[in-house]
Amino acid sequence: MSIFEKIVAGEIPCHRIYEDEHVLAFLDIGPLSRGHCLLIPKVCYVELGEMPAEVGAALGRVMPRLCSAVKAATGCDGVNVLQNNGGAAGQVVMHVHFHFIPRYTAKSPHAGLEFNWPAGQLSDEDAADLKAKIVAALGSA
Amino acid sequence: MSIFEKIVAGEIPCHRIYEDEHVLAFLDIGPLSRGHCLLIPKVCYVELGEMPAEVGAALGRVMPRLCSAVKAATGCDGVNVLQNNGGAAGQVVMHVHFHFIPRYTAKSPHAGLEFNWPAGQLSDEDAADLKAKIVAALGSA
Repeated sequence: MSIFEKIVAGEIPCHRIYEDEHVLAFLDIGPLSRGHCLLIPKVCYVELGEMPAEVGAALGRVMPRLCSAVKAATGCDGVNVLQNNGGAAGQVVMHVHFHFIPRYTAKSPHAGLEFNWPAGQLSDEDAADLKAKIVAALGSA
Repeated sequence: MSIFEKIVAGEIPCHRIYEDEHVLAFLDIGPLSRGHCLLIPKVCYVELGEMPAEVGAALGRVMPRLCSAVKAATGCDGVNVLQNNGGAAGQVVMHVHFHFIPRYTAKSPHAGLEFNWPAGQLSDEDAADLKAKIVAALGSA
């Protein structure tokens, strides 16, 4: 049982902020910044790709309101929404979760998510190859 | 008109990988890693919080399949899904977009999204204050 399943089941307490049939949102107890919260499906899927489309829709349906509420409640300057799939991508709890991380422009150790953006380039050849492979994979999903 | 609205309208070309009534997915031409793609609503909303719930649901419905297809097509080790709201959060194009960024464990300048995770702590007092404010903001959204 994942730690988030225990939270859903009420075996571990949480600071619950939203709940419906399919999803739960609560405050992250190890926040990157003030107001950092998590949105999860109640059923455990390890990665996004394992989740049924309708569960994805249930999560997506709540995202606008949650983002807006976090912004209004904290007065933050921006919000990063981040969802990590796989240990290689930084996933620690193996139950799909979307982080909503307020960003504050004031310098602080808890200003929010910070990342570099060393953008590369996409060649026409690689684009054609990738497009064909992704479209094929979507077709068989 | 945002650059993504021009892409939706066909005025600017893109490497299109998925499209339905509400959303479009295409390859990022400035990829952080091989297979980096974007998922957007066809209608322009600057931030997630401005988007109707049903558009959020339409985006969320596609996320599992897209994530799975990107992973299958690239053989990557993980995938980060990132959506930035506001210039302070690193948003550059002012039209909601979810990045799907493959992560490769091999060291490379284009291994994917890299970030630090300097987790803080959440006091019971601050949790109660945040919870009350976010729940109130959700209620009035």
